Amino acid sequence: MSAVPADQKTIVAAPVLEAFARELLLAAGLPEDESAILANTLVEANLRGVDSHGVMRLPQYVRRFSRITMEPIRVVREQAAVAVLDGGHRPGQVVGVHAMRLAMEKARQTGVGFVTARHTNHFGAAAYYSMMAAREGFIGFAAATASPRIAPWGGKTPLLGNNPWSVAVPFRPGFPLVVDMALSVVAAGKIRQLAARGEQLPPGWGLDREGRPTLDPQEALKGLLMPIGGHKGVGMSLIIDWLAAGLSEGNFACDVVPLDASERPQGVCLMVAALRIDAFLEPEVYAARLEEHAARYKSSAKSDESVELVLPGELEHRTAEERRRNGIPLPAYVVNSLNAVAEELGCPARI
Amino acid sequence: MSAVPADQKTIVAAPVLEAFARELLLAAGLPEDESAILANTLVEANLRGVDSHGVMRLPQYVRRFSRITMEPIRVVREQAAVAVLDGGHRPGQVVGVHAMRLAMEKARQTGVGFVTARHTNHFGAAAYYSMMAAREGFIGFAAATASPRIAPWGGKTPLLGNNPWSVAVPFRPGFPLVVDMALSVVAAGKIRQLAARGEQLPPGWGLDREGRPTLDPQEALKGLLMPIGGHKGVGMSLIIDWLAAGLSEGNFACDVVPLDASERPQGVCLMVAALRIDAFLEPEVYAARLEEHAARYKSSAKSDESVELVLPGELEHRTAEERRRNGIPLPAYVVNSLNAVAEELGCPARI
Repeated sequence: MSAVPADQKTIVAAPVLEAFARELLLAAGLPEDESAILANTLVEANLRGVDSHGVMRLPQYVRRFSRITMEPIRVVREQAAVAVLDGGHRPGQVVGVHAMRLAMEKARQTGVGFVTARHTNHFGAAAYYSMMAAREGFIGFAAATASPRIAPWGGKTPLLGNNPWSVAVPFRPGFPLVVDMALSVVAAGKIRQLAARGEQLPPGWGLDREGRPTLDPQEALKGLLMPIGGHKGVGMSLIIDWLAAGLSEGNFACDVVPLDASERPQGVCLMVAALRIDAFLEPEVYAARLEEHAARYKSSAKSDESVELVLPGELEHRTAEERRRNGIPLPAYVVNSLNAVAEELGCPARI
Repeated sequence: MSAVPADQKTIVAAPVLEAFARELLLAAGLPEDESAILANTLVEANLRGVDSHGVMRLPQYVRRFSRITMEPIRVVREQAAVAVLDGGHRPGQVVGVHAMRLAMEKARQTGVGFVTARHTNHFGAAAYYSMMAAREGFIGFAAATASPRIAPWGGKTPLLGNNPWSVAVPFRPGFPLVVDMALSVVAAGKIRQLAARGEQLPPGWGLDREGRPTLDPQEALKGLLMPIGGHKGVGMSLIIDWLAAGLSEGNFACDVVPLDASERPQGVCLMVAALRIDAFLEPEVYAARLEEHAARYKSSAKSDESVELVLPGELEHRTAEERRRNGIPLPAYVVNSLNAVAEELGCPARI
């Protein structure tokens, strides 16, 4: 197998990349429908420029799902507008899509659907699920527990997850407004970048192992991530624990197995909700109001004339339009690692 | 009328303070049931030590509600699990309680209730409504729009509300876990305290009128509050706009009239939700799981041996227990202003 030189970018058309990802996951033993869901979530993340949650994750997913034992997803409890799922340790993406479909089905009947799930794994970019709802005319919400990287406020033990969550609302055709975040001031990946460049951290990004503020990226990586708003971010992390894990009888974030520990199910919990807009007002009226608000937002005065005021999800939408036309650029190390995984699995597909 | 000397604290028993507040609001022209609700929300905030949202707000409320024209609250749209209310410009507290009662009624039937409301006013501490749900065995959520103090990310126009929101979950009898926050790193009141002491701000608290970071509290007070997590807090403020205002066809935060502009209805929007725990699992199991998690949280290692690791809502619960026993301490300027308002209204009540 010839490797791509380190400095070379490979441009891959989205459908080609998605087919490749599906082949790889099938070869790893995932069923066809689940391989298709997982491949789609990864390539959607790449399209939106969220490459950290794109196909570069495939080797981790392949290792996990070729090893752990999975059961079918089942409904544990259900009422008209809510449900609890047991994810059977299946991929978070599969359980997330299943949960959101159920939430939308319920919202069609009652106006809102709220579904929690236990026994699942990393679900990738939270925006995938909220946007899935927005595409069908709902306001979507999705959140999950994540392996612990945040301490109790005043503490130094990583007991709380840097839990991802997202809200999406339908805005223009194919362009929802999307808030998508985890609860730390910055992602660990950003701290790793500064560490690699030998630079200091800005104040307020990280804490060392003793829970003290640090500007040293190495100390922060061994220590803790600073939650947004300090104790406020701690509270937000707890809320996702209380709801996603608490209401599904799954593990709290403190017991979530890290994504890269491939030998065990992660025990991630998630929650999703869908709100049916036409239960509240005419969707056209809603869209017009958002347009008016967006126009005020975007045309308001700037602190620096060189910046553009962008709505949440706007840059990602623009990147997706561009990458759908021109393909997804992948760095050599991603291409090489994916082709190596394909070879290991005896799968003939290559990118 | 003899004024209390400036350095003297008056200790008032909670029921006495509540009866006084009720009298004042009745004298201002609010109906009996609404005076009772508003008085209770204010004294509850004082009991929990959240004095900024307690009876010191009465003069503002009295001025507003003795002047504006109000209509009855009405249901604009309704489905099994959701509703939109028109608050008729009544007090946010009255509409908030009404909305949460409706959300709980719906949650009893379907598992979850979600209610938005337009045409209302400042609703005080968001925790009042989430805790109201927690007291009846629901997980409660409440949020509202607030007058704009935050700029679009990269902008300098205050278009976004420092919107308050809260989640409460039942924990121990009379002791819910409560997250209650607005979206700025610190409240404007804290910046005012530093300004009064002639001190500088820590980095990351405020922006000047040009949207540039400032350490000068005076500049920040004329400028903008920094949202938690920067663009993340901006996204959270937008979400509350998109849902509370967007789904109720009310004003967005950019058009909310400040609380102290007494001559006009504020046009606040709110949203509340209730989740029925026993739709998901046995409430005893839920409580036991929270206990176990709380024990791990509280007993984890501290960054500083002199601090206590407290759960969200724990300090407020402790203060409430203490103040329920020993009374609520009020500074002289609050007592004097309240007695002055009573005199103005021709109301014989005094504290």
